[in-house]
This record gives sequence, C-alpha cells and structure tokens, in this order.
Amino acid sequence: MKLWDKGYKIESAVEEFTVGNDRQLDLHLAKYDALGSLAHAQMLHEVGILTDEDIKGIDKEIRAILTNIESGDFTIEESFEDVHSKIEHQLTEKLGEAGKKIHTARSRNDQVLVDMHLFCKEEVFTIKSLVKNLFDRLISLSNEHKDVLIPGYTHLQIAMPSSFGMWFGAYAEALIDDIHFLNAAFKISDQNPLGSAAGYGSSFPINRTSTTQKLEFATLKYNSVAAQMSRGKLEKSVSFALASTAGTLAKFAMDVCLYMSQNFGFLTFPAHLTTGSSIMPHKKNPDVFELIRGKCNKIQALPTELTLITNNLPSGYHRDFQLLKESLFAGLFELKSCLQICEFMLQHIIINKEAINDPKYDYLYSVEVVNKEVQNGLSFREAYQKVGKEIEEGNYSPSKEVHHTHEGSIGNLCNDKIVEKMEKAFN
Amino acid sequence: MKLWDKGYKIESAVEEFTVGNDRQLDLHLAKYDALGSLAHAQMLHEVGILTDEDIKGIDKEIRAILTNIESGDFTIEESFEDVHSKIEHQLTEKLGEAGKKIHTARSRNDQVLVDMHLFCKEEVFTIKSLVKNLFDRLISLSNEHKDVLIPGYTHLQIAMPSSFGMWFGAYAEALIDDIHFLNAAFKISDQNPLGSAAGYGSSFPINRTSTTQKLEFATLKYNSVAAQMSRGKLEKSVSFALASTAGTLAKFAMDVCLYMSQNFGFLTFPAHLTTGSSIMPHKKNPDVFELIRGKCNKIQALPTELTLITNNLPSGYHRDFQLLKESLFAGLFELKSCLQICEFMLQHIIINKEAINDPKYDYLYSVEVVNKEVQNGLSFREAYQKVGKEIEEGNYSPSKEVHHTHEGSIGNLCNDKIVEKMEKAFN
Amino acid sequence: MKLWDKGYKIESAVEEFTVGNDRQLDLHLAKYDALGSLAHAQMLHEVGILTDEDIKGIDKEIRAILTNIESGDFTIEESFEDVHSKIEHQLTEKLGEAGKKIHTARSRNDQVLVDMHLFCKEEVFTIKSLVKNLFDRLISLSNEHKDVLIPGYTHLQIAMPSSFGMWFGAYAEALIDDIHFLNAAFKISDQNPLGSAAGYGSSFPINRTSTTQKLEFATLKYNSVAAQMSRGKLEKSVSFALASTAGTLAKFAMDVCLYMSQNFGFLTFPAHLTTGSSIMPHKKNPDVFELIRGKCNKIQALPTELTLITNNLPSGYHRDFQLLKESLFAGLFELKSCLQICEFMLQHIIINKEAINDPKYDYLYSVEVVNKEVQNGLSFREAYQKVGKEIEEGNYSPSKEVHHTHEGSIGNLCNDKIVEKMEKAFN
Amino acid sequence: MKLWDKGYKIESAVEEFTVGNDRQLDLHLAKYDALGSLAHAQMLHEVGILTDEDIKGIDKEIRAILTNIESGDFTIEESFEDVHSKIEHQLTEKLGEAGKKIHTARSRNDQVLVDMHLFCKEEVFTIKSLVKNLFDRLISLSNEHKDVLIPGYTHLQIAMPSSFGMWFGAYAEALIDDIHFLNAAFKISDQNPLGSAAGYGSSFPINRTSTTQKLEFATLKYNSVAAQMSRGKLEKSVSFALASTAGTLAKFAMDVCLYMSQNFGFLTFPAHLTTGSSIMPHKKNPDVFELIRGKCNKIQALPTELTLITNNLPSGYHRDFQLLKESLFAGLFELKSCLQICEFMLQHIIINKEAINDPKYDYLYSVEVVNKEVQNGLSFREAYQKVGKEIEEGNYSPSKEVHHTHEGSIGNLCNDKIVEKMEKAFN
Repeated sequence: MKLWDKGYKIESAVEEFTVGNDRQLDLHLAKYDALGSLAHAQMLHEVGILTDEDIKGIDKEIRAILTNIESGDFTIEESFEDVHSKIEHQLTEKLGEAGKKIHTARSRNDQVLVDMHLFCKEEVFTIKSLVKNLFDRLISLSNEHKDVLIPGYTHLQIAMPSSFGMWFGAYAEALIDDIHFLNAAFKISDQNPLGSAAGYGSSFPINRTSTTQKLEFATLKYNSVAAQMSRGKLEKSVSFALASTAGTLAKFAMDVCLYMSQNFGFLTFPAHLTTGSSIMPHKKNPDVFELIRGKCNKIQALPTELTLITNNLPSGYHRDFQLLKESLFAGLFELKSCLQICEFMLQHIIINKEAINDPKYDYLYSVEVVNKEVQNGLSFREAYQKVGKEIEEGNYSPSKEVHHTHEGSIGNLCNDKIVEKMEKAFN
Repeated sequence: MKLWDKGYKIESAVEEFTVGNDRQLDLHLAKYDALGSLAHAQMLHEVGILTDEDIKGIDKEIRAILTNIESGDFTIEESFEDVHSKIEHQLTEKLGEAGKKIHTARSRNDQVLVDMHLFCKEEVFTIKSLVKNLFDRLISLSNEHKDVLIPGYTHLQIAMPSSFGMWFGAYAEALIDDIHFLNAAFKISDQNPLGSAAGYGSSFPINRTSTTQKLEFATLKYNSVAAQMSRGKLEKSVSFALASTAGTLAKFAMDVCLYMSQNFGFLTFPAHLTTGSSIMPHKKNPDVFELIRGKCNKIQALPTELTLITNNLPSGYHRDFQLLKESLFAGLFELKSCLQICEFMLQHIIINKEAINDPKYDYLYSVEVVNKEVQNGLSFREAYQKVGKEIEEGNYSPSKEVHHTHEGSIGNLCNDKIVEKMEKAFN
Repeated sequence: MKLWDKGYKIESAVEEFTVGNDRQLDLHLAKYDALGSLAHAQMLHEVGILTDEDIKGIDKEIRAILTNIESGDFTIEESFEDVHSKIEHQLTEKLGEAGKKIHTARSRNDQVLVDMHLFCKEEVFTIKSLVKNLFDRLISLSNEHKDVLIPGYTHLQIAMPSSFGMWFGAYAEALIDDIHFLNAAFKISDQNPLGSAAGYGSSFPINRTSTTQKLEFATLKYNSVAAQMSRGKLEKSVSFALASTAGTLAKFAMDVCLYMSQNFGFLTFPAHLTTGSSIMPHKKNPDVFELIRGKCNKIQALPTELTLITNNLPSGYHRDFQLLKESLFAGLFELKSCLQICEFMLQHIIINKEAINDPKYDYLYSVEVVNKEVQNGLSFREAYQKVGKEIEEGNYSPSKEVHHTHEGSIGNLCNDKIVEKMEKAFN
Repeated sequence: MKLWDKGYKIESAVEEFTVGNDRQLDLHLAKYDALGSLAHAQMLHEVGILTDEDIKGIDKEIRAILTNIESGDFTIEESFEDVHSKIEHQLTEKLGEAGKKIHTARSRNDQVLVDMHLFCKEEVFTIKSLVKNLFDRLISLSNEHKDVLIPGYTHLQIAMPSSFGMWFGAYAEALIDDIHFLNAAFKISDQNPLGSAAGYGSSFPINRTSTTQKLEFATLKYNSVAAQMSRGKLEKSVSFALASTAGTLAKFAMDVCLYMSQNFGFLTFPAHLTTGSSIMPHKKNPDVFELIRGKCNKIQALPTELTLITNNLPSGYHRDFQLLKESLFAGLFELKSCLQICEFMLQHIIINKEAINDPKYDYLYSVEVVNKEVQNGLSFREAYQKVGKEIEEGNYSPSKEVHHTHEGSIGNLCNDKIVEKMEKAFN
C-alpha cells in the first residue's frame, strides 16, 4: 500500500529505484514514528478532531506496536514502502476510520521530520556518552602512566621530551571540543517540527506546543517552512559533530599505528587483539586501529556527501532528501562502534616504559639544556647558538632529567582541571 | 631574518616555496601576535624572568607596534618570513637583550596558536553579529509582508499556499541553528594555548593561568600536546560553523535567483543593484545572489579542504599546518562579505504582491479543500480521493481563502517567539 | 578459518569490527578471485611449482567453483572471513596439499588487487555501454524534436531561443567527455598487479607476463610496490570517472525537475512513471529524476570519501583499504541503475510543443532583433542600445522566426558529427 | 567601462562584490583572449562581416596587444571589469567602429569559454611535461640505487625486504596512471566552444570550423548548449587530473617525511635544503616535503570545491561560474610548483645505505625463509607454521640474501618497460 496510490500501477523498475532500502532503514525510525503518531493523536484529541473512543483505540494500538518494536518483532513487508505506510496500515486494519483519521493535519514529510529529530537527539546523546567513556579511559591511562617518558615529535623529527601522561591526556582534552559540537547538534535536533505538514502548515487548529511537550522537545521549530528546511540541515548539523569527533579518533588511531611500528615500539596490544599475516609469521598488525582510522576518515566525508545531496536545492521538499538517511545512519552506527572498540582496546594497551632509553633520543633534551643556560643568564638566542655548536661539534651530553612544572606540562598534567572542563561541557 | 637561521643559505627556490604568501596573511594576525607577546612578557616579568626595566621597555614598544597596526602602517618586509620574526626584530632593535628574552619559554608554534585562537574568537563573534543583522532584516521583512501569499512547492511542483511572511521568517529561524555552531566554534577558540611551547611544554616556571586572564580567555587548553593538536582542529571547527552558515545563505540565494526568474516573478531588485547582459538588452540578472550562492557553496568545501590537509598526520607540529591560514582566512572574509551584502540587498528587495493570482496557482488550495471536507466529517483518505477526482474531471473550483492559525503557519508566524529563541541562542 | 590464524582466539568484538560486511561485498569479487587463482595456478604449473596432477585437480575444482558462482549458488559462510579464505578452503578440502600450494608466491593483498583490477575493468566497461545507450536515446530525441523551440536561460533569466533538439543533443555531447574519463579509468584498471605478493615481490621464479596474458590484461603494473600502491589509487581513479558521469546525469535531472514544474511546463511523464502526494491530490512528482539527481550527487562525494580514507598513508598495505570496497561498489551499482532508469524514463518523455508560445517568452527574440540590425549595418553596441530602448519604452514587437545556421545551432545541430565523435571516443 | 552598462550607476559595494579579483585572474587569460579574438575576427572577415580594412586594423592591434602581454606590460585597470572589456576598449579606441564590430556573433560567455579551453590545454600540457621530468628523475634514482635495500612495510609493521630501486621506481610507474587522467583532461580541453554566443548560438552565418582550425583545436564542442555546459565541467575535469597527480605526489612526500624521521633514517637532504627550529638546535626539518604534501592534499579538495560551486545548477550560464577561475588557477599553479620543487629536491637526496643493517630488520627475511622451505618441499602452510614457531622460540636466524627475479621485483625492476609504458601514455 502506497500512501499516494491513485490507481495507477507504477512500473516495478521505478518502484524498486525509488523505494531503495528505505524499508530496512526505517526500522531504526519505527519507535520514533510510533511515539510521534501517539503525540499527534493525543493532540488531535485535545483539539477535538479525534473522539474519546478514537484516542482510546489509537493509544492502545500504538502501545502494542511499540511493544512489538522493542521486542524486535516489528517488520516492514515488501507491500509497504516505508514505516509510515506500515504503521498507518496497522492502525487502520485494527481501528478502521479512527486509524485513518490520525493522518489529519500531517504529512509524511512531517512524520519523517519528527522521527529524524527524535532519532538524532537520542543518537547524539548516546555518542556523547560514548565519548565520555573514552575520555574517562584516557584520563585514567594518563594518570596511570604520567611518569613514563616518550619522545615528542615536530615535523616527525625527534624534538622534546613528552610522556604517556601527556599523550593520553591530550586526546582526552581534545574530545571536549567535540562535545561542544555534539551539544550544538543536540540543540538543533531538540526542536519540534511536527505540525508543519507538507512544509507550509495547514488549516487545522492543531496545538504544536502540546506535541512539543509530549515529545519532550526543548522548543518548536516554529516556522513551518523552517521546519521543512531542517530536512538536510539537521542531518548536516549532526554530520559536522560526527566529523569533528571522528577526526579526533582518526588522529589517535594514526598515532597508535605509528607507535606500534617496530620503528617506534612505544606500545602494543595482546596477540589476541591483533591480527597476523598470511605470509609473514612475525607480524602483529594493528588492524583494529587501522579500521578505526579508516572508518573515522570515511565519516569525515559525510558532511560533503550530505552537502552535495542537498546543495542548491531551492526551499521545499525534494525526494532527494530520502537519500540522507542511509549515509547518516551508517555514519552514526560506525562512529558508535569505533568509540566502543577504541575504549575496549585501551583497556588492554601495553606500554613500553623503556622506549625512551634508546640513544637516538638523547637530542630530546637539547631544549632543556638551552633553557638551563637561559636560566643561568644567557639570552635565548645565545644559548640556542651555543648548544647548536656543541651538537655540531659532538660535545653534547645532556642530563636526562625533566623538570616541567607549569600547567599542562609533563610534571603538572592538570587532569583534574580537564575532568572539570569535561563535566561542564557535558551537562 | 629567519628565526632558525644557523648560517646556511637556503636556496631561494626553497624559500619562496616555503614562505608562500605568509607575510601577507600574517598581517591579519599582527594585532593578536602583539597582544600575545605583551601578555607573555608581563607574565615572564611576574615570574621573575624579565626585570622591571625589561618589561617597561617591552610594554612601551609593543604598544607602539599596536598603534602602528591599528593605523595600518605595520608591514612585514621581504627580509622577514613572518609576523613573529618581524615583531621580534623590532623589539630587539629597540631593546637589545630584553627584546631577545621575550622568546623565553615559547616557540613560534605557540605564537601562531595563540594568534589563531584570539583571531578566531574575534572573527567568529563578528560573524555572529552579522548573522544577527541579517536575522533582524529577515524578521522585519517577514512581519512587513506577512499577508502576501506565494505558492509553496514540494518536488518543485506547486503544492500549497505559502507567504512572504513564511519565507523570510523561515530563513531567519534557520539562522538560529547556525548560531549554535558558531557558539561551539567560539567556545573552542576561547581556550588559551600559550605556554605549550613547541607542543610539549617547557622547564620554565611560567604561569599560564596569568596569561589566560590577561588575554581574556575563558579557560586554558591545559595539556600542551592538546594545545598543539588544536592546530588544524581549531580551524576545522571554525570551518564547520562557517559551512553551516554558508549553507543557509546559499539556499536563500538559490531561492532568490529562482524567484527572480520570469518563470516565477515573485521578487526583483532595483536596476542599479542588478546587472545587464552584453548581448541581451532586456535582462536584469541577479549577479549578487548568484555570487552569494557560489561563494557560500565554495565555503562549504572548506571543511573538506582543511580535513584533507590535516588528515592522518600523527600528533605534533607539521609544516603543512601553515597552509590552513590561507584557506580559513579566505572563508572568513568571504562569508562576512556575503552576510553584509545580503543584508544590504534585502533593504532594497521588491516583492510582487500579485504573483499568486496567476490561475496556475489555483491547485494550491486543493489541500485546503480536502481539509475542509475532513472537518466536515469525511476521513482524510476519502476527502483526498474525492478532490483528486474533481481535479481529474475538471470540476475543481477552490475558494482562495487561507485560514491557517496554528503555531508557525501563515496566519500565526510566531516571529516574536523566534526572536526570543535567537536572543537566547545568541547570548 | 582465518588465513593468519596462529592459535589465538580473537575476541569476537574485534572480529566483528574487522570483518565488517566483507563477506557480502566479496561475493562481487568471487568470479575474479577464481579466475585469478586459475591463472596463478596455471602459471605455477608452467614454472614447475605445481605438478601436472596438481594443476589438473585445481583446474577442475576452480571451474566447478566458477559454475557455482555463475549460477548464484556460491556463498561465503560465517566461518570464513573473506572470499579468499573460502576458495582456498574449498580447494584444500577437495585436493589436500595441491590446494594449499596455490597460495605459493602470492598473498591476500595480491589477490584483492587482481580481483579489483578485473572487477573494475568489467564494471567500467559496462558503465561505458550504459552511457552509450543513454547517448543514443538523447541523440534520437534531439533529432526527433529538433524543431520544437524552448526558451534558453542565462542567470535563470529568459535569454534566447533554444530547442529540445539543442537541449537533448547537449547532454549527449557532454557524455562524450565522460567517456574520456571512463577510458582513463579503464586503462588504469587494465594492468596486472598479480605476483606483487605482499607488495614487495617474492623469491619465487614466477612469470607475471604469463598471468598477464591469461587474464587478458593490456600490460603489467610492473613494479611490485607500484602494484600495491594501486590499492586506493585504482579506486580513486574509477571514482573520478564515476563522479564525472554522475555530474552530467545530475545536471540533466535538475533540468528535468525544473522543466516539469508547472512554472515551466516544458515536459512531463506518464502518470504511472511519476508519484503522487499523500496530501495534495493534483501533484505529479518527478521522483525518479529527483533520486537520479540525489544519487548522482552522492556519487560525486565518492572521490572525497576514498581520498580521505587513503590520504597521508605512507606506502605499503594498510587495513584501511578494506573500506574502499563498500564505497566504490555502492557508487558503481548506483550509477549503473541511474543510467538505466534514466534511459528507460526517456523512452516515455512527453514534451510540450506549445510552451514557447507564452507571451513572457517574447523577449527571447531581442538578440535576434539586435543581430538583424547589425546585419543591416549598425554596430553591435548601437543596435544593442536601440533595442534596449524599444523594450524600455514598450515598443518592442519581435518577429518570432529563428534562422540559426552555424555549426551547433538550432538549425544545424550537427548530431551526425557528435555521433562520430562518440564512436571515436568509445573505441 | 562595463559591457552591460545601460546608464545606471551600480552601487560600488555591489561592484566590488561582483568583480572580486577578476582583473588579476584575467591576466592569465589575456593571451588566450587576444588569440581567440583574432581568430574570431579573421573568421568574421572570411564570412563577410568584417571588411578587409577592418581585419587589417584588428590584426595589427591584436598583435600589438599580444606583444604587450608577452612582455608583461599588459594591465587591466580599475576602470575595466575584466580582460574582455579591456581588450575591446583598446580595439575601439584605436579602430573605432571596426573595434566594436568584433563583438558580433559572440558574447563574454563565449570568450571566457574559449579562453579557458585554450588556457587549460596549455596548462595541462605543461603539467604533463613536469610529471615527465619528475618521472625521469625517479627512474634515474631507481636505477642508481637499485641495490640498496630498505625494509618494506605492511600495516606500518616491518614486513619484507624492499629497496630504493623499488621505492623510486614505484612512484615513477604510479605517475603513468596520472598521465592517463591528464590526457583525458587535455582531450576535453581540446574542443572549440567559440561561436556558442550566450550558450544558444546565434543567427550570424559564422564558420566555427574555421576558428577551430585557426585556434588548433582538435574538434568542436558542436552543440552550443554543450559548449556552454562545458563551463564548470571543463574545470572539474582538469581538477580530477590535478587531484590524481597531487595524490601521487602527496603520498611520496609522506614517505619522505617519514623516512627522514630519525626513527627511520632512510634518507635526508643537505642542510641548506631543510629548515631548523627556533627552539631545538639539532633539528633538520623536511619543510619542503611537508608543504608538497599539504599543498597536494589541498589540491585534492579542488574537485569537491568546483563540484559544490556548480552542483544542481540547471543548464545555462550562471554568474557563480566566475568563481571557478580562482580555485582552478590556484590549483594549477600550486601543482606546477610542487612538481618542480620535488624534482629539484630529488637532485639532492641523500640515501642511507646502512639503514637495513639494524637488527630490528632481521625479521624482514622470514618470508624468504618460508619460501625456501616451500621450494624444499613443504606446503606453504607448514613452512609458515614452522618459521612462526622458530621466531616465537627465539631460534630464528635468517640468511640476508635476497634473490628476487620475477618481473617488478628487487632483482628485476623492469624500469625499461616502465619507461616504454610512459612513452606510450605520454604521446
């Protein structure tokens, strides 16, 4: 049953092309579609469009559908083109006229919009929680290994002393920036579009403030045209937040893969969490982090993809918007799995406390030596030239003590301040 | 004078390739570099690294440089590779040793970082203000033309009645979503990276909390590695907010260009704000809005560009980051000019109150008619099929009255609520 | 069975994360994997690594597998991580030692590479054929409707006379440019990487020229490191060609959607090939072309996606490359379906011969009038100003005859030359 | 002087916004604009629109302008909006009526199109030549260092023996793939759009075949609408070829930066071609290769940028297209300078012949050992498990001889075949 069926038989090639994998994707929206339908029906009852009897029946049936969805028994058969058709059909079959009346003062555009806003709110919140879990793990590793030095690089050249405390803590703090974008995406999701009908409102005396409260949205997307325009804009907004978070994760994964190389040897993972090679028996490959990197890099293409789909389309609904779901859903699910497996892997990370002792890292301390000369009275430029000359002439032999005390340095990580900043951003 | 000069002569081809147009770009950072240097020097004085005399001289000279910058007289000559070299040179020339000592406990990475954070804060705030100006103009146009109907489209097909009140108001409300992203970018900029030196801190007993207060940052980017990692991440964050805003503006410009086409004829602009054609004397072309559209579409490529430059680079500074400036600055300046000219053009927009009277728009009211039948007791499906049949049989003759009363509909734009929402988001 | 199994039990979360949907994707590669294995085995036999008996058994079993694949009966069960493991398992189960020996002098990297090159060759060729079909349809429509005028637009303003002959023919000719990119992608695919082992060759005395001939590649990717580097580069190359073609198709679809709007009314399709609206009974929506547009716009994001996945990875295999398959396959399959359905729809297009008669199109002929004045002796500038004045003063009344005779104009489409150009590019 | 001036004064803000930096960019097109104008005028004379005297004057003046352009004396003053206005003005000033008549049967769209096609042809050819230079350098380095082993990596793990011969040669061969894309872009540029006027042809009896021959185009873009549509499509086509080439170069630069890290130490450059650090006196940074990497990564964003600008614009000219020039020109010039400086740097590369002797590379030979066991009669799986066990038990002590003989392996680079393939692709 197609909602727009007027008696013509649509060519099956056309139908296959247009429906695509919507049935499968819409399963993720079923819960929100049922909740949106229930709120809409309750409001229609409040404003006198549905009778007491109507709403009693609808309420009961939608709750049954919700139970079905939660238990995983809800399906969208080939005879329906999407979740909206399926739920309307179920209501109509059980309730007759009353089931049909629920479509009063709304359209499918409307339904998709409210489904997507509710879905994105929940998904973004879940991602925030997973980011927080990863943050906690990183802070805990930073504290645990705060005294283990590693080289710090600039231009991929050995530069200055760093530490595992610094490295883990840095990614923790970077994740706070991502929380700001997730918060922005959450706020943008947290606006009720329901009631905008096909994008221009309707003549029914509906009460959108009531559905806003029922669905626990913070506010309305008031203007109906703005509500319709949020199709595409909502998805892009979420994609920016995903891309931001994925960027942090991808960079971390790159570091892990590099540091696991025998040319660095800073860290490794137990054999059962790495993979081998079909032809090289001594290898322990960081496949999980390579795939975190790759998947997170792919997620960073999402804003471009969604922008290209929606770009230069004038206002008003276009069928192109249907394609936003597949890309966005994939991005959301991938990012969640990357965040989870990353945190899981970090539970098992094995760090190498001795890496720093390789003689090639002796130059690390040259800046320390320069600084000491400065503290002893030379200008920076003079000290810099003096040490440079020592190195060139082979007379350089540094003390390997590191006394960094300022905020955010090896000896003073400020992880408690960083935790405080995260708490403030998160809530 | 190059800061890293050790006596070798760098091949001039290499120098030209590596310096690029940095001197020109750095002029935009000069103010922030001077302010950052002043705060750093004052802090060095507080912790006893600079003497009273040192700081007196430095304070005086940096204020002179700032005056120079404000009056537009500051230049970066060919003999300097960037703004940092130039300012250090000026201080050293005037102050001798004291001028050199200001480089204590910081590096160029550090300086660029603090410059960029201060610059982005100010630029993002300016863009927020320009967005607010445009919002105000749109709301005012929405109120002024709230009773002028235009067709609303779905699938580019004539669909339902809309109005200029709806159309202008929709873009106003959409801009609020962009404010959320600009706020996120602002928060990410509002963290002090100064003191992270080359990205791993230093052994000097500096006080980063002090420079944070002096430079009016809301907080520190505590972890020095995180501070260094904000290179690239900061720029990408700002680019997401720019892309979000540009997306709204580009869509609006597309609508304007379409509605100015003689095939729509909904609006126009005075001749002196349009351009003509070299070969078609009757044309009045919407060049300004075509270029807003094009420039804003280009800005939407910025996240991809910045991501490609930074992607898969392990942690630590890389020279690649230098290239972020050119792309980001261009995006910021273009978006500001687009926001300004868009608001300017809208001061002169001429709307067509009669467009709606074309007979091809009679079908607009079909949904109204369906709804009226529903309010008279038919189910939606039945009403829908009845009106569809009338249309097919040529018996359709609608009343053209529109009575939309719900929140966000033609008769109830809720612009006051939208203004309230903007105020809340803005502050 | 995992090829790299060394006795450790990989955590199931890790396995699920790393295998992803590879089994499903690899079904598309099965045919090529079998063909590649057969060629490799035959060559191993030629150089004396496999015995006569070995090759007889292997030949028979691989042909059985190929039959299975062609009939659709080939499956990759949960117990195998990819197509390579599955086929190796089948051979070993049937042939024992001989089945194992086929892995001599190659690795999975190798196998994926040869599979992907063969697959891309065939897919790119199929797409070329579908482009050619669409080209033929467009040329035929151009010829059929060469005398039907429509307005030509610049800046979306009514500009000059055009025709359906011009419009259909233009997209036909544009597709020839896409053929050049498809040819480039084909040539890049048409190089044999087999024998590069894990990306650095091997000590076995294999004969890569022999497998090149057996697999009908035009040449070898000689250097083994270059062969390995073609992972990512091959996929990106194909994606450029897909993006080029998709760009042409998306633009055509945009035109169709615009021209189907009642504000243009230049063309339509039979009701059974359009869709209706759940709330607006009079609508006939161009969903198919909206989805062609959206899908083709999404395909244009593919180069960015593949570039982001592979960018800044140093040479040598990385697991990230596994993710290229999913994105590329989806792009290939989507583009094929878009090309097919576009050609199908065009079989049924209904053009409006009367659209041009609307009085708003009278200005179309102003350039003709200017040109006539020029041919009568005025300079272009003088003629231009004269006609401009007539239009402004309301004295403009054009003749509506169009006599364009030069190559590529309304009266001289040169479709035969365009067909000739396509033939030359295609072969 | 603006070509479309009708007496209105355009607001200066509008003019600044619309003209942008067109004057500066157009200097790169001046030569082609003059050549296109000359060919157009000669053809107008052939078909009787210009008199003998007209063409004599025009010929002389355009040649004078060309001389001016070649000597670098040609300028576009503030009083002109672009190169077309400037040249027309010069001709008119000198020749009066005859100068005006050259605008007959063409428009600015036309002129930009022909300028861009000629410009792209020449630029693409120059890039091909620079790619060839770099190819030659790489082949020569490959031959020179064919016996110097380095480790080969997979998953960034030490995997198998490779060599500088393999590494240099691999990038040489990879560049051949880029030549295929440059060839496609060249063919697409090599089509004459002149005569399409504003995109719909004209009523003048012009001879486009004649201008095609004069301008040495291989063929016409026949259909005038197709010619107009090549705006955007041409630029995107060139950008695909640039992105392809840039991708190869960026990957090479990443390898160089990594191999210059002290953790690899495979290669370096003389001090005068590297840069130092302001705070770390022992550093030698690969700035040139970091900037090649960054610039080439930025170039890889070009297809997205150009696609976003042009996407979903219906057929016909739009002012947005003006923005394509700036992005494309920057990409072309950057790529040329990257190719040049890369080749220059490689003249001075210093390779480390001893890197391979580090004991951590002993595992490199494990596959060799496995293979030897196979050649001695074990199945691959058995040999693989045997060597794996030796490594785990510490009994592994490999011979370090490498005997690779097949095509494209360490001992048989096939550089002559690769050179042959390049020659074939190039011509």
